[in-house]
Amino acid sequence: MSTINVAPKGSSNLKKPVRVALLGCGTVGGGVLRLLAENATSLAQKVGAPIEVAHVLVRDKDKSRVPECKPEWLTTDPEDIFSDETVDCVLELMGGQEPAKSYIERAIDNGLTVVTANKFLMATHGPDLLARAAGKEVDLAFEASVGGGIPVIRTLRESLTGDSILSIHGIMNGTCNYILTRMKNAGLGFDEALKEAQELGYAEADPALDIQGNDAAQKLIICSMLAFGSNFGADDTPVEGITKIDTVDFAAAERFGFTIKHLVVAREFGESLSLHSHPALVPKSSVLANIDGVLNCVYIQGKGLGPCVIVGRGAGDMPTAVSVVADLADVACSRIEGHRGLSTRAIQCGERKLLPAEELSYRYYLRFEVENAPGVLAEIAGALGACGVSIGEMVQEEENDSATLLMITHECKEGALLQAFEKLKAYSHQTGEARFIRIENI
Amino acid sequence: MSTINVAPKGSSNLKKPVRVALLGCGTVGGGVLRLLAENATSLAQKVGAPIEVAHVLVRDKDKSRVPECKPEWLTTDPEDIFSDETVDCVLELMGGQEPAKSYIERAIDNGLTVVTANKFLMATHGPDLLARAAGKEVDLAFEASVGGGIPVIRTLRESLTGDSILSIHGIMNGTCNYILTRMKNAGLGFDEALKEAQELGYAEADPALDIQGNDAAQKLIICSMLAFGSNFGADDTPVEGITKIDTVDFAAAERFGFTIKHLVVAREFGESLSLHSHPALVPKSSVLANIDGVLNCVYIQGKGLGPCVIVGRGAGDMPTAVSVVADLADVACSRIEGHRGLSTRAIQCGERKLLPAEELSYRYYLRFEVENAPGVLAEIAGALGACGVSIGEMVQEEENDSATLLMITHECKEGALLQAFEKLKAYSHQTGEARFIRIENI
Repeated sequence: MSTINVAPKGSSNLKKPVRVALLGCGTVGGGVLRLLAENATSLAQKVGAPIEVAHVLVRDKDKSRVPECKPEWLTTDPEDIFSDETVDCVLELMGGQEPAKSYIERAIDNGLTVVTANKFLMATHGPDLLARAAGKEVDLAFEASVGGGIPVIRTLRESLTGDSILSIHGIMNGTCNYILTRMKNAGLGFDEALKEAQELGYAEADPALDIQGNDAAQKLIICSMLAFGSNFGADDTPVEGITKIDTVDFAAAERFGFTIKHLVVAREFGESLSLHSHPALVPKSSVLANIDGVLNCVYIQGKGLGPCVIVGRGAGDMPTAVSVVADLADVACSRIEGHRGLSTRAIQCGERKLLPAEELSYRYYLRFEVENAPGVLAEIAGALGACGVSIGEMVQEEENDSATLLMITHECKEGALLQAFEKLKAYSHQTGEARFIRIENI
Repeated sequence: MSTINVAPKGSSNLKKPVRVALLGCGTVGGGVLRLLAENATSLAQKVGAPIEVAHVLVRDKDKSRVPECKPEWLTTDPEDIFSDETVDCVLELMGGQEPAKSYIERAIDNGLTVVTANKFLMATHGPDLLARAAGKEVDLAFEASVGGGIPVIRTLRESLTGDSILSIHGIMNGTCNYILTRMKNAGLGFDEALKEAQELGYAEADPALDIQGNDAAQKLIICSMLAFGSNFGADDTPVEGITKIDTVDFAAAERFGFTIKHLVVAREFGESLSLHSHPALVPKSSVLANIDGVLNCVYIQGKGLGPCVIVGRGAGDMPTAVSVVADLADVACSRIEGHRGLSTRAIQCGERKLLPAEELSYRYYLRFEVENAPGVLAEIAGALGACGVSIGEMVQEEENDSATLLMITHECKEGALLQAFEKLKAYSHQTGEARFIRIENI
């Protein structure tokens, strides 16, 4: 039997404890405390020192918490943490803008290592916070800010050190994916599927951030920062949600050999970068087509690596807590070895240009609601053709006086398609808004 | 614009170069040299020092190599490497048992950091080599030994630090997966699909190691060492290949709602562990069912994390080279910060018990070749039932005098099934060998 055990349980090889303060103790914080207790031995082994909770900042000390949370840790006063010189690491688990941002900045300025699960903050102020941490030679780790327990940040940051990333496609919002899955598999309408998601706790009472694509866009911004060194804010990304997807689109996608997913997409074009948070048709045989329910998925295309897909629970307390603890182990280990800020200083980001949507080339799925009358199809096809958009496949669904035209185009510039749509606005036989969805051939 | 650039290009912040020696310079070695050249700046940034190639050990100095390989690096004499005190890291890319093992041991004993892509060596001597490295406080990194460019080792080692792993399911052999995919999608027979795989370069001239399940078993042994701290050798795992899978099995699996994959499976049972390299039926809706062609896939089930699936190219020169370089960046970084052996010392392995196959509980797919005569089914069902194996679904395919009985059982102990099969051996109406395939409900 071979045993590798350089620093066995209780061994004096262990260094003095790494002292940790939690900012916030909701469900993720509770999960973190549970994991720290359950895995204390293996964590000490990995880190080279025991991890010790010093403080837990909460709003209400009397609220009921997980049994692993000791009452003596609780404080409502952040000064208890920032004035305690024995604290090494801060875990920011409060979420939102303020006071989370000020606390993180203060921790960095005090030379503390920081782990955060704050997607919003990393998407809006990531580059600034990372620069601040790098300047102070402390680590700022944020695996839990994207994709819950899926190790996407680590993979982008570490595994692909020696490779160039060509593109990222992600199913990054569990609410959208649940709704689209139910629309596909059970034929539900959007409103029905959303209601079901809300009843099951997969969608918020106010689901706007999820179903309009903004939550996914924030995750894309963070991934893009690591993969392409960009420093965009979440508002820089074109964002389109799933609220206009209809059951008729699913039926048509199915017939053409596709399904519909809400994707975030980042592509490297050398000079510029394209970023999108949008619904897209993907081939039914694609790995992405079969990621169903609340699962999240990131599909990375590396120059040397080829495709690498990571799938898992993109949200949830325990998956997120697992990522927080993995980050903590990592940065604590660096800290006690006097080897700080290394995982942070390798992240370089600066200004990148966005490719205008007009310049993109895609195949498109088109839907036109028209009067059921002779010559209507010819006119629409004519307008598309005149702008250089040619149709690959078409079906027409008729119902009394009206018809729905469903088309798959050949690849064309999006500018050409937009021009055709602009022309067709003046076309009186249309009875509803014309729609297009991009096709991601992945 | 925010720029994080603690150690800019050419900055004097960079420490003295990390000097690397390659043992072997085949296609993976060539890929490594190319990546080191292409990504020199970002690697120096990440590591905190430039990476410099010191020597490349080859058998034949005159062989044509990638342009990135400078002739002055080449040597046929390992002493040039081991006597050079400026060398920091050794990349073992020769494969096989000897002299790779002796070179790795010598490098470790000399205090050098080692990166290896040698699956066979890690599966047969992993725990010993890791113990040796830990004893010398040097790192031994081996991401490239499993799953090509897929970051499975890193995920098991780092991301899941704060979690317990319950099970691992993997599609770990691209040759098997290609053959099974072609049998499923094109209705090819095994021999035909193998021939095609050989023509396309996806299978070796002697494909035994792949199609008999041994290559996948070696990868399982390495994953199990990280996930469960076991120190089994590749010979300890029950191994079953795909050579007996017939087109009739695919048709039947399809009818019952499954497809057939070659899987490695490791499961934690507290006291003991089960390990298998075997073909299995998986539900058609499973993520694993849709991993086709030469792709590899690892499905990790964490206690806190839930499911995490990683998919990518499991073989190939460039994906493997990407993993080697990622490992090199990692260990080089640790080394120059005087922080050695950390990623290695956290790996703990020791003796674990294997759960005997008889104790496992599965649903099973059964195939019996029998005479097409009255009473035959009743007797087979009777023998199964007498041993406690009950049938959930059954179809019978008749052809003149013979019939094939295809069944899905309810869950039962494998011991019970084996007992029934033993009884049925004496049963004269069988015209061929009875077969079972386990069903993995994943």
